[in-house]
Amino acid sequence: MALVVKKFGGSSVATTDKILNVAKRVLSDKQPDDKVVVVVSAMGDTTDDLIGLAQGIDAQPYQASYAREMDMLLTTGEQVSIALLAMAFQKLGQPAVSLTGSQIGMRTSSVHTKGRILSIDPSRVIQELDSGKVVVAAGFQGIDKFGDPVTLGRGGSDTSAVAIAGALKADTCEIFTDVDGIYSADPRIVKGARKMQEITYYEMLEMARLGAGVMQPRSVEVGQYFNIPIHVRSTFTDTPGTIIREDYTMEEKGFIIRGVAHDEKVAKFAILGVPNQPGVAHKVFASLSDANIDVDMIVQSIRNVDQNITDIVFTVEQNYVGEAKRVIDGVAEKLGAIGVVVEEDVAKVSIVGAGMLGAPGVAARMFGALAKQGVNIDIISTSEISISCLIKGEQLRTAVNAIHDEFFSND
Amino acid sequence: MALVVKKFGGSSVATTDKILNVAKRVLSDKQPDDKVVVVVSAMGDTTDDLIGLAQGIDAQPYQASYAREMDMLLTTGEQVSIALLAMAFQKLGQPAVSLTGSQIGMRTSSVHTKGRILSIDPSRVIQELDSGKVVVAAGFQGIDKFGDPVTLGRGGSDTSAVAIAGALKADTCEIFTDVDGIYSADPRIVKGARKMQEITYYEMLEMARLGAGVMQPRSVEVGQYFNIPIHVRSTFTDTPGTIIREDYTMEEKGFIIRGVAHDEKVAKFAILGVPNQPGVAHKVFASLSDANIDVDMIVQSIRNVDQNITDIVFTVEQNYVGEAKRVIDGVAEKLGAIGVVVEEDVAKVSIVGAGMLGAPGVAARMFGALAKQGVNIDIISTSEISISCLIKGEQLRTAVNAIHDEFFSND
Repeated sequence: MALVVKKFGGSSVATTDKILNVAKRVLSDKQPDDKVVVVVSAMGDTTDDLIGLAQGIDAQPYQASYAREMDMLLTTGEQVSIALLAMAFQKLGQPAVSLTGSQIGMRTSSVHTKGRILSIDPSRVIQELDSGKVVVAAGFQGIDKFGDPVTLGRGGSDTSAVAIAGALKADTCEIFTDVDGIYSADPRIVKGARKMQEITYYEMLEMARLGAGVMQPRSVEVGQYFNIPIHVRSTFTDTPGTIIREDYTMEEKGFIIRGVAHDEKVAKFAILGVPNQPGVAHKVFASLSDANIDVDMIVQSIRNVDQNITDIVFTVEQNYVGEAKRVIDGVAEKLGAIGVVVEEDVAKVSIVGAGMLGAPGVAARMFGALAKQGVNIDIISTSEISISCLIKGEQLRTAVNAIHDEFFSND
Repeated sequence: MALVVKKFGGSSVATTDKILNVAKRVLSDKQPDDKVVVVVSAMGDTTDDLIGLAQGIDAQPYQASYAREMDMLLTTGEQVSIALLAMAFQKLGQPAVSLTGSQIGMRTSSVHTKGRILSIDPSRVIQELDSGKVVVAAGFQGIDKFGDPVTLGRGGSDTSAVAIAGALKADTCEIFTDVDGIYSADPRIVKGARKMQEITYYEMLEMARLGAGVMQPRSVEVGQYFNIPIHVRSTFTDTPGTIIREDYTMEEKGFIIRGVAHDEKVAKFAILGVPNQPGVAHKVFASLSDANIDVDMIVQSIRNVDQNITDIVFTVEQNYVGEAKRVIDGVAEKLGAIGVVVEEDVAKVSIVGAGMLGAPGVAARMFGALAKQGVNIDIISTSEISISCLIKGEQLRTAVNAIHDEFFSND
């Protein structure tokens, strides 16, 4: 007997035919005494349709004052899909019951549209599983202390699934998606990208942070917290995907780097000629932090020793360029900076792998591979298990391939 | 200060523009310190759309085994409309909060798709009203003891509204609809039909039972239980409509009958030649009752004294004809009846009014008015405050007008 949580995204349940297929797929994998929880997102474009309705009331429905009502609105999306999927199981002869975020005991913070999971009380889920039912649970949603529905924001359905798996001490959490696993680089960019059999939470988090889009960091963090293996696999095939877990179980040990990540949605800010004195960097980054803008790479370099002025360079998500510009222009003026330069045609390429800790010369090999292809490096930043380079956006494809070739072609 | 519950049906909230209009309408009527609860149904065709989705899973989604999931599915309809209406109030500067059936404390039985209200705990509603918000509550839905959403079935949104008004001891419950009140006869049939200022619960119940379609009997019963005046009025005008209440407050006392009701959705069954002996009628009507088929008019008459056999004639809703036929064919065979005749081209016309209790000759006037127009009466049945006649369907319009003229033209 296994206790398994399976999560299917919106595209897997976009039509009633697809919903029936999900039910068939789950049943074909199910042993008679397996206990199965299926977590689903809203059907296909439902969320966009609901947002469209809200825009009929106010063109800007994502204002803070509407956040509670947006959650009331958006949580209906999963409620529709769970009801239909539970019906689909019953249609196929499998007893099933749908449960909302509230009913699965998913307690969240009250930050509407961006709730955080506080705790899960899975007693109703356990009771329904024990009675022989497949439980169809709404992803992406929970309930706060006031009893109000709250959505979990980006990556919320995956996070729900992993958290439920953790609360149930499930054997595994399977995330069904439109790709068949985690690759050593984006297969759309690198022809020879390899599917990993396994990757650690730690490395996956770093890959995700650096732009690998398959999994949101949140769900991986929750998996790590509960130590639940997360199996990322394809909705459309039976081939095993990639298992994200605490440590490697198999022959995959011994690699140097695990993958090449990239991120095109990056913008670079340079504040030129600010006084080289204590507190300047703090003023810059505190004001960005106050505006809830995450900063990624940071470099400070001397511009002119005689004048004792420096340049401060950093990157932010492209979404935040407008807001960051407004904040930085204000700060730059106060600091008497020479000017502010924003570059949006940049991209970040990174290598990730716990193996690089014990392998000297990894950085040199990465930079060398880039140099050989004429890719200029603008900023470099490193973490314990990753090295990232900011480069020109138009050279991204070349860069990713060059690095991937360097580390993956000759083993 | 007044505490008012206002209910708007699906057609009043069919689009976001209409939702904004409902919010404007409510605010234009609202005094600064009024407390207002607005109960809404699902937007326009939403419920049909959701049923259409369910039919994508199974062509027969209203099977009992799906009932719980149908409720999970259908309750999203109101959840969408309450969220949008609460946003609309906020857009207009009025603080508002949407509450689901669960959140308004609407506890129901567990009979999915046909829930009955067991109790209401309006503490959350009161708290939100006290904080100065307009409460936008989901009609048609509640929650059972398991925490599962349950819909209230036909007329459920009106019933929700009246029950909330009762639980809150509201001053009045306004039901906004596409007609502007209760008429002495259906204005589509009788040109001179008059709008009533008031009608008692008792009479309204009888009118509804006999086919007057504006209000479902359930909501009137709940209004009577809580003694909450129900004001039935138009969504589109400010004209006062009809107030349903315990007793008349004004000059409207002294009429003989209140209205003429009619019902075209009637079918007549005749079981011919059954033994005239004890227990026969019981067998017939117990078997219909076991099949959950309501019987309306009943007549038993001697067919042949010598053979000691009788005919049993009764009417049912046309929806049930198929099922009733199946049941009755079985019973008739067991009883050795000569045959079963079903007539669908029949209609029922009724007069209703507490005033007829003290007024002799009312029945005679009704029958006379019908006779004068050549309308043959098939069956007659009476209650304390009504008289009904079954006639040919094609004579319905003539009959209703004749009776209305008889009682309403000369005062």
